[in-house]
Amino acid sequence: MFAGPRDLEAVSLDEAQERWHNELEFRGLGGAGPVEEIDVTRALGRVSAQSVMARRPSPHYYAAAVDGLAVKSTRTFGATPGKPVRVHLAPDATFVDTGSALPEGTDAVVPISELQFVNAEEVDVLEPSVPWRFVSPMGEDMEAAEVIVPNHRRIRPSDMGAMLRGGVARLRVGIRPRVAFLPVGGYLVPPGTEPAKGQRVESITTILGALTEQIGADPVRMDIVAERTEALDEVLTLERRKQFDLLVIISGKSHGSALPAAWVAHHGSLVVYGANIKPGHSVALGMVDQLPVIVLPGNAVSSYIAFDLFARPLIARRLGLHDLGHVMLSAVLGQGIVSPHGIDEFLRINLTRVDGKRIAFPISRGADIVTSLVRASGILHVPADAESIPDGTPVEVQLLDPQASLEGNILLVGTYDPAFDLLRNAIARRNSDVHLQSANVGSRAGLRALRKGYAHAAGLHLFDDETGTYNIHHLQENMPDTPITLINFFKRFLGFIVKKGNPKNILGFSDLTRPEVTFINRQHGSGTRVLIDHHLRKAAVDTARVKGYDKETYTHMSLAATVASGAADVGIGIATVARGLDLEFVPLISEQLDLAIPRRHLKSYPMQAMLNVLRSADFRKDLDAIRHQYDTSETGTVVYEG
Amino acid sequence: MFAGPRDLEAVSLDEAQERWHNELEFRGLGGAGPVEEIDVTRALGRVSAQSVMARRPSPHYYAAAVDGLAVKSTRTFGATPGKPVRVHLAPDATFVDTGSALPEGTDAVVPISELQFVNAEEVDVLEPSVPWRFVSPMGEDMEAAEVIVPNHRRIRPSDMGAMLRGGVARLRVGIRPRVAFLPVGGYLVPPGTEPAKGQRVESITTILGALTEQIGADPVRMDIVAERTEALDEVLTLERRKQFDLLVIISGKSHGSALPAAWVAHHGSLVVYGANIKPGHSVALGMVDQLPVIVLPGNAVSSYIAFDLFARPLIARRLGLHDLGHVMLSAVLGQGIVSPHGIDEFLRINLTRVDGKRIAFPISRGADIVTSLVRASGILHVPADAESIPDGTPVEVQLLDPQASLEGNILLVGTYDPAFDLLRNAIARRNSDVHLQSANVGSRAGLRALRKGYAHAAGLHLFDDETGTYNIHHLQENMPDTPITLINFFKRFLGFIVKKGNPKNILGFSDLTRPEVTFINRQHGSGTRVLIDHHLRKAAVDTARVKGYDKETYTHMSLAATVASGAADVGIGIATVARGLDLEFVPLISEQLDLAIPRRHLKSYPMQAMLNVLRSADFRKDLDAIRHQYDTSETGTVVYEG
Repeated sequence: MFAGPRDLEAVSLDEAQERWHNELEFRGLGGAGPVEEIDVTRALGRVSAQSVMARRPSPHYYAAAVDGLAVKSTRTFGATPGKPVRVHLAPDATFVDTGSALPEGTDAVVPISELQFVNAEEVDVLEPSVPWRFVSPMGEDMEAAEVIVPNHRRIRPSDMGAMLRGGVARLRVGIRPRVAFLPVGGYLVPPGTEPAKGQRVESITTILGALTEQIGADPVRMDIVAERTEALDEVLTLERRKQFDLLVIISGKSHGSALPAAWVAHHGSLVVYGANIKPGHSVALGMVDQLPVIVLPGNAVSSYIAFDLFARPLIARRLGLHDLGHVMLSAVLGQGIVSPHGIDEFLRINLTRVDGKRIAFPISRGADIVTSLVRASGILHVPADAESIPDGTPVEVQLLDPQASLEGNILLVGTYDPAFDLLRNAIARRNSDVHLQSANVGSRAGLRALRKGYAHAAGLHLFDDETGTYNIHHLQENMPDTPITLINFFKRFLGFIVKKGNPKNILGFSDLTRPEVTFINRQHGSGTRVLIDHHLRKAAVDTARVKGYDKETYTHMSLAATVASGAADVGIGIATVARGLDLEFVPLISEQLDLAIPRRHLKSYPMQAMLNVLRSADFRKDLDAIRHQYDTSETGTVVYEG
Repeated sequence: MFAGPRDLEAVSLDEAQERWHNELEFRGLGGAGPVEEIDVTRALGRVSAQSVMARRPSPHYYAAAVDGLAVKSTRTFGATPGKPVRVHLAPDATFVDTGSALPEGTDAVVPISELQFVNAEEVDVLEPSVPWRFVSPMGEDMEAAEVIVPNHRRIRPSDMGAMLRGGVARLRVGIRPRVAFLPVGGYLVPPGTEPAKGQRVESITTILGALTEQIGADPVRMDIVAERTEALDEVLTLERRKQFDLLVIISGKSHGSALPAAWVAHHGSLVVYGANIKPGHSVALGMVDQLPVIVLPGNAVSSYIAFDLFARPLIARRLGLHDLGHVMLSAVLGQGIVSPHGIDEFLRINLTRVDGKRIAFPISRGADIVTSLVRASGILHVPADAESIPDGTPVEVQLLDPQASLEGNILLVGTYDPAFDLLRNAIARRNSDVHLQSANVGSRAGLRALRKGYAHAAGLHLFDDETGTYNIHHLQENMPDTPITLINFFKRFLGFIVKKGNPKNILGFSDLTRPEVTFINRQHGSGTRVLIDHHLRKAAVDTARVKGYDKETYTHMSLAATVASGAADVGIGIATVARGLDLEFVPLISEQLDLAIPRRHLKSYPMQAMLNVLRSADFRKDLDAIRHQYDTSETGTVVYEG
C-alpha cells in the first residue's frame, strides 16, 4: 500500500485559505500577474491592468446636433418669420450635417425648418437661436484624462465602446493564467472512449477546464496518468511545470489525495493537507518551486467545491480581479439544515419561486453525483459554526448559472419513489423549459413544507388507520383552510421480500406466524409500518407470535439486505429493492401515493405541463414497464378536492 | 435632402415586438435555427438542440468503493476479531481497488483494515459485511436513458461532465447565428484611427458585436459606408446578404434611420418603422428576402437598448433558448420617476447597497453618452402605462454585469458640480474597487434622499439666510435625530458673468443699479438666488432699481447664454460657464458645498477611501488648477458634527 505524507490534517477552511493566501503572497503570486497589451476590440472579458484614461474628450470638437446652418448666434437675434434675418453664406454661415464640426466663429446651428433659401449666397433665418443651440459640446460624453475603465475591471461591451471614443485603441490586460489539469487513475479513459467494466470516463478535467475558461484563464488538459508516483514524476518534469501558472491534480480512487500530496511534499512543500470542508476534505495545497499545486479529491462535486474555494481565488487574483465574480441570490430556506459543527459545508441547492418568494431547498446527494450539480441552481455555504439553520431562514445562495431563469422550476417535496425520476425525465423530454425539482423529505415533512408555502406540491402516502384512506384525512387536519386538489400519482405494490424461489413458501399474512419463519419489520412511525400493522390487524394476525416483529429497519433497502443476509426470511417492502438484491417479491397490498397541489398553483404553466405528462399514455407505459411496481389505473385522476 | 420612406410611426413597444415576432414566425425564423453536432468537450456555452439522454448508466457497473477484498457477503456473517472467518482467494474472493468492477458472485468489499493475511491463498475476515457494503451501485449517478441535458439549454461545465459520464461524447447544438453589423456615416473612422475634426471613431459595432458574442452568436463587422443609398446597395449584395442570419444597420447622423429604412423598404419590406420607446424610438425592423434587418439609431445608448429589445430575442430564439438570459435584481427606487405616458422608457440605473437595502437611482444622461452605460449597474424598464413611480417603490433592474459586486459602490446625491467628476476620477485612479456614483437631484432632494436612507452621503449647498451659514441649519431641521458628520468639499466662487473685457466695468453689487446695466437673475427658490438676495440685502441694494431683476433663468448655463446673447449685461454664476461661452468672470462671493455623511456610513471602506482622496494634496491640486473656481482651504475638514 502507498502511505500518505502524513495523516490528513483537519484545519479549518479559514486556516486553509489563510495559509494558502500567505504562501502565495510570500512567493509573490498573491496579486495580479504579468500583463500584455491588446486591441480594445478584442478585450471582451479580459481584465484591465491599468487605469484606462481618455486620450481626448468625446466628442473631441463642438459638433452640429442637427442638419442645418452653422451661424454666430448673435446674428440671429431678433429674427421672426415676419422679419427674417438675412445671412450671407461664406464666411458668415455654413451648412453642416449632424455630427460635423462647428466652423470657426459659429456657435449655433439653425435647423433647416427655420430657414428660407434666397439664392446661392444668401439665406433667411426665421427664428432666433441662443448660443450653443443644436450643438453637442466637446467633452459631453467624456473629458480628456477621465478614467473610462478603472484598473482590475473585467471589460464589458460598453467599456470597449467608451475606450474607442476616448481615443484608446489598445490597453494592458492581465495575461490569462495557464491552468494545467492532471487526472490520476489507471481506471480512467479519455472522453470519447467506450469504458470497459472497471473503467470510467474521465470527466472532471472537462468540468473544471470549462469553469477555468469561464473565469478567464486557459485550461491545459494533460493525459491521464496511472496512480503511481513515478507516473507523476514522468509527466511533471521541471520543463513542463514551467509552462503552467497553476497545476491541478485530480486524485485517483485508491490513494486519494495522499499520493499526489506526497509527490508535492517530495518535490516542494505542502501548505495544506486536508481541510474541514464538506465535500472536499481531502484537498491538498502546495508549492513545487514557483508552481502552485492544488490536489483535488477524485469526486466530481468535491472537486468542484474545492476548486472554487482554492483555485478560483488564485486565478482571479492573478488576473487582477478584486472579487470572485460569484453571483449571490437571497432566498428563504425551505427545509431546516443540520450541519456538523466545525465543518464548513457546501450544499447543493434547488431554487424555486413559490408565491413570489424564492425558496432554497437542499439537495442531499453523494460527492460523486455529477447530476446533482447539473440539477442544482446554486450552492449554499453553511459556515463551520452553524450547527442548525431552521427552515424559513433567509440565506444567500451562490448561483451556478446566473442567467438561468427560475420560472420553469416546479418544486415537489415529500416522499420519494423512483417514479419521480421517471416523471422528471418525461417532463424534460416534452417540456424542456419546465424543470421538476423534487426533495425527498418524507410525507409528513412534505405536508409541513406545503403548509408553510415552501413548495408547489407534495408527494404524500399518509395512510389513516381509522378511515383506511390515504392523505385526505391528513390534508383536512393540517391544511383545512387551503383549497387543495389531490391527484393520484400511482399505487405502489408492497409485498413480501423473500429469498429467491421463496423457499419457505410465504404467501400470506398468516404465514408470518409459522414457527420456522423469521420476520424483519420497518420502524415504528414510518408510513409502511402503519400500513403493515393495519393489514396484520385486518388479517387478525397475533403479532406476538410473529418472530422478529420487534426487529426494525429504517429503509426498504436495509430491510431487503437483512433478508439477503439470511438474518430474516421475510419483510414487507417494494419490488425494486428485491430485484436489486436478487430476491423474490410477492405482491400483497397496494399503497397510494398522491400529489397534493394547492389550487393557486394548479393553473401555472409548469404545473399544467407536469399534469399533462402525468396523464399521458406514454408516461403510464413507463411506469407499467416496471414489473410488480406500480398500479397506474388511477394515475392523474383527481382523488379529492379540499 | 433625403426623404424617408414615410414618417416615423409611433407604434407601441408591444405592437412592435408582436409584429416583429409574427413576421419572423411567418418566415419560419421564429424558432430554433439549424443545428450541428459537436464534441461535448467543446460545448461550453452552446445551446443544446436535442434532449441529451444517458447512453449507459453511471457508474455502468457495480464498483468497489474502497480498496479491499471483494467477497460474497454471506461468507463474512458471524466474523469477529476473536473468531475470524477464513476465506480462500480465487475463486471465493478477490482483492480490488476503489473503482474496480465487483467480480461476478461478490456483493461486498471488506476494507483492508478488517483483514488479516494468512498466506498467499487465504485471508481472515475480522468483521461481518452486509450485502453491498462499500459498493457503489450501478446507476447511482444516472440511469440509462435519463435526460442529462434538456433541449434548448445553454451548456454549463457540469453538464459537460455529466454527458461524458453518461456515455455521450457528441451532441447537437444550435449553429451560432451570424450577425452582420453595418455602420453608416462618412464621418466615421474605424477603431485605431485618429479622427480629424468632424470625424468620430465608430464604436457602436464594437459594443454590439461584443454583446452578440456574449449571447452566443458570431458578429461580422462590415466596413463603414457613406450615408447614401447607393453605398448600401454596393455592399449589401444578394450574395453577401446570404452569408448572414441577421443584418444590423447602424444609422448615420444626417438621415437617421430614414435612409436605411428606405433601403429596406425598397429591397424588401418594412415591418416596423419607429416605436414608442425611449431611447431608440427611430428603430426600424424589416425583411430583405429571408434576411431580418434591424436598423438602429446612431446613438450608443439608443442602439444598445433597441438591440436588446429586437435583436437579442431573435438571436436567442434562433439558438433555441427559451429566455433572454437577462439577470434581474430587485431594488428600491431611491428617486421618483416621471415618465411620459405611452412610451416605454429604459432608464440607466445606479445600484448601491445602503443599510442592507439595494437602492436604484436613475442616471439622467443623453442617448449618445456611452459613459453612462459604462457607469450604470443596470437598466430599468418603465412601462408605457406608468407615468410616475414614487421613490421607495420596489423595482426589478436588469443587470448590465451580473458578476459585478455592489459592495464598492458609494452613492452621493444632491447638488452637482464638475468637482464630483474630478473626485470620481481621482478615486478610480487610486482605489479601483471603489465606485463613486453621484446623482444630481439638487440639495433639497438630496437631503430628503439621505433622510430616507437612499444614499450614503449628500452634497449640499443650502444657505440659511437668517444665520448666514451653510447646511448646518437645514440638517438640524431635517434630520435632528441622525448623527451626521458634515465635511467641507470646497467653497465655490460665484461672481459676475460679463462680456469679455467687462465693457461696462461692473465690479460690485452697487454697479447693478446703474441705469445702463441690465441684470439677469436666477429663479426664485434656487440656492444661488437665496445667496444673491442675501448679498444684495447686505450691500443695501434696492432691487427695484436693478433693471432685469425680475427676469429669471433656471441654470448657470442659460444665464451665461443670456449674457453672451447681449440680452443682459451681467448675471451671477460660476466661472466654468463663463469660460465655456468666452465671457469674463469677476469673483465676488463664495458659496460652500459640504458633504453630509450619516455617522453609520463614515467608517465603511469605500467612504474612507473617498475621504482619503478628498483630503489628498493631489486632489486639492486638481481643484486649484481650475482658475477662479474653487477655494480648497477647508476641503476635507469637518465642518460640523450633528
